Amino acid sequence: MKRAPQRRVAVFTCMDTRLVDFLEPAMGIRRGDAMVIKNAGTAVLDPTGGVIRSLTVAIHALGCNELFVIGHLDCGMADLDVKQVEADMKRRGVPADAISSLKPDLEEWFGGFRDVYANVRRVTGLLVDNPLIPADVPVHGMMFDPATGGLEVVNAGY
Amino acid sequence: MKRAPQRRVAVFTCMDTRLVDFLEPAMGIRRGDAMVIKNAGTAVLDPTGGVIRSLTVAIHALGCNELFVIGHLDCGMADLDVKQVEADMKRRGVPADAISSLKPDLEEWFGGFRDVYANVRRVTGLLVDNPLIPADVPVHGMMFDPATGGLEVVNAGY
Repeated sequence: MKRAPQRRVAVFTCMDTRLVDFLEPAMGIRRGDAMVIKNAGTAVLDPTGGVIRSLTVAIHALGCNELFVIGHLDCGMADLDVKQVEADMKRRGVPADAISSLKPDLEEWFGGFRDVYANVRRVTGLLVDNPLIPADVPVHGMMFDPATGGLEVVNAGY
Repeated sequence: MKRAPQRRVAVFTCMDTRLVDFLEPAMGIRRGDAMVIKNAGTAVLDPTGGVIRSLTVAIHALGCNELFVIGHLDCGMADLDVKQVEADMKRRGVPADAISSLKPDLEEWFGGFRDVYANVRRVTGLLVDNPLIPADVPVHGMMFDPATGGLEVVNAGY
């Protein structure tokens, strides 16, 4: 099997456990079809960070010519309890200075959001506007329902 | 199905297309079992970047108590041709100033590596040493063969 994705698409989505073995089948994506990038919340917080690096490799080294940004309903990053997380970090021995060193502060470092649809629209827009993503690569924003496997189009970015 | 992973593990691996619908089954991981984080090359280039953020959420908000760092044979980040990628970026209209703004330079920004085993050992060590990852979370380094589905243990970090 080849290293380059046969359907020449890259999917950027969330690390949520309910998407495993569920999102790709719902999209009709099989082994060899697509690059798949996952993080907490389908979030882009740094315009030259790891997500942009991965997409750049997918596009320029592996021939992806279309991007899908796929958020999902009931996302943990939409109701992250930063105070609870901070308390658990301290209880488990994460040093206070490691926590306080996170910029601009712990709440913003996590980059949670209220509205999963708004996050998909925001991230789609960030990719379209990012000079590192070529203008000839369309970016589709979609929402996945991790309970039913349903997908809906949120927006299309060009 | 619950938001928290039933097997309380987080898997950090590569976006490679041959791992899709192949790595998780090879590990016996099914929907609902694990959080799965993916980027280009199973790479960690920023000690407070998106991978660490995602793992922090997996551990402290979603109850993961064990991490798997899974590199793979024939990884594109082990033979990335940065000159070819740069030429394709320019040909596709990525502005020269966007490319030259990447720190410390394009080659290091991509963070490619020669040895997939060394990368797994390095990333496993970075997670063990990262003060944001609690010391009570074991980190396992493994290598996946995207042709056969075979997995081998590279190292164990505590």
